[in-house]
Amino acid sequence: MTATILSSAKQEVTIGFEQPFVMIGERINPTSRKILAAEMKVGDYSRVEADAIAQVSAGAQMLDVNAGIPLADEPAILAEAIRRVQSVVDVPLCIDSSIIEALESGLAVYQGRALVNSTTGETEVLERVLPLVKKYEAAVVGISNDETGINQNPNERFNVAKKIVEHAADYGIKPQDVVVDPLIMPIGVVSQAGNQVFDLVRKLRSELKVNTTCGASNVSFGLPQRNGINNAFLPMSIVAGMTSAIVNPLHPELVQAIRAADVLTGVDDGCSSWILNYKKPVAEGGSTREGRHRRRRT
Amino acid sequence: MTATILSSAKQEVTIGFEQPFVMIGERINPTSRKILAAEMKVGDYSRVEADAIAQVSAGAQMLDVNAGIPLADEPAILAEAIRRVQSVVDVPLCIDSSIIEALESGLAVYQGRALVNSTTGETEVLERVLPLVKKYEAAVVGISNDETGINQNPNERFNVAKKIVEHAADYGIKPQDVVVDPLIMPIGVVSQAGNQVFDLVRKLRSELKVNTTCGASNVSFGLPQRNGINNAFLPMSIVAGMTSAIVNPLHPELVQAIRAADVLTGVDDGCSSWILNYKKPVAEGGSTREGRHRRRRT
Repeated sequence: MTATILSSAKQEVTIGFEQPFVMIGERINPTSRKILAAEMKVGDYSRVEADAIAQVSAGAQMLDVNAGIPLADEPAILAEAIRRVQSVVDVPLCIDSSIIEALESGLAVYQGRALVNSTTGETEVLERVLPLVKKYEAAVVGISNDETGINQNPNERFNVAKKIVEHAADYGIKPQDVVVDPLIMPIGVVSQAGNQVFDLVRKLRSELKVNTTCGASNVSFGLPQRNGINNAFLPMSIVAGMTSAIVNPLHPELVQAIRAADVLTGVDDGCSSWILNYKKPVAEGGSTREGRHRRRRT
Repeated sequence: MTATILSSAKQEVTIGFEQPFVMIGERINPTSRKILAAEMKVGDYSRVEADAIAQVSAGAQMLDVNAGIPLADEPAILAEAIRRVQSVVDVPLCIDSSIIEALESGLAVYQGRALVNSTTGETEVLERVLPLVKKYEAAVVGISNDETGINQNPNERFNVAKKIVEHAADYGIKPQDVVVDPLIMPIGVVSQAGNQVFDLVRKLRSELKVNTTCGASNVSFGLPQRNGINNAFLPMSIVAGMTSAIVNPLHPELVQAIRAADVLTGVDDGCSSWILNYKKPVAEGGSTREGRHRRRRT
């Protein structure tokens, strides 16, 4: 069974077939968060820390940390953000940058085994990122696009994923340490985007035997009531074989949909996580919210 | 492509591959509704009519009508309930009884092409129900249990479904007019119940080429926060190939999950139904609830 094992100094998480789905919290990312970007740029990490704690409390088993701020010293900021996050939560992290120096400075300070986010299938990118992944004995997200862009044909995207896995092997990185992002098109633009991803995930699992991840909310881009689409997309992806996703765990209905999918695919043994999270505590005339939002134990 | 065509005097609905999923409203059923049972028994159908209107407004494309009340004249009550429902809504109906005389009296008054709910794979039941289905040129739900009960092995349940389809053919009923219920075990009791159903539905679709339906809420029996399980179960079943279900459409999140699954499997062409149902109308300082709960046009 394919297992990608990530760790912090204190916790280990396995992304894998027959494992509970791994939610990677997406919030620590200044890309479309102006206030967060401004704060990080001047060395204020209070919101980063609060977001880390909130996401883990809401059920995230890992967190993505991104420091992509225009005209800022991304390597230094990413390293500091990682230090701060690791000082307040114990979950393993996903180190997220398109800048190789930032990935390196993040990996240098990281305590544990990180997931590097990401390489594409572009040869030049592979040759920059994979040596770093190997040096730090990390795992890596492989995004299934290459020099030609994102291919509309999912079989071509499968071939890009295969290329990434093969290149990783050349650097001594095992297939189980490559987590493939099959790339999700907006369903409002490509009506077969869902079916494409479900088929591709099945094939990545059965033929390439790799774990998968995705930026799930992309699927609903441009549509009204996006959360409704996202909440259905993840259970459908999970039954197709997806094993992790980068999501916003502060949406309780999304977290619930993912946990329900774990129940329904039989990986939540005895429904114990479901019952722990959603059974109302015996009330002493009090609220039942605590029970519903109780932190998941991994 | 397999298509089960049902109709009322005024409307036609197709259960089929590549079609929007068909929600069959479950509310008109006195089994666990004491007040409704008491009213129907004394000839008060006001609640039946109100429930019919409410379910169609909420998005049901068909309604199930059941009149199983102990010590009551079920054939007469079922016939009257059907008359009343057909007087207030235009959707096709599912005529639901385990009593052959009630099915017959319901079919006799029904205007259009009904779905008979149901036969099992028991030879004696098949021999009573199928001639009636043929006589009225109806379609029929075939439940995949037989004289030996509900088999834990989904391959055996597949064989029961095959037997039903073959017997139906002997009576001149086409496979496309048999809608198979694969039977769903409670996931809290059978941890593989979800995977069993997903696999069975795939096989029923690809090998037996039949439509499928189910009483979806059974899956969450005995668990806390049942709606959360049900809301994920239906999108997962739909991606496996399920084409209809008997559900409570008065749960807006369940209806939304089903409509999202239609978007994600590409059968909601251009996302037009989704946008119609969930796009907020341009507000004149008013509420947006109308937009979200607007009736689906079929």
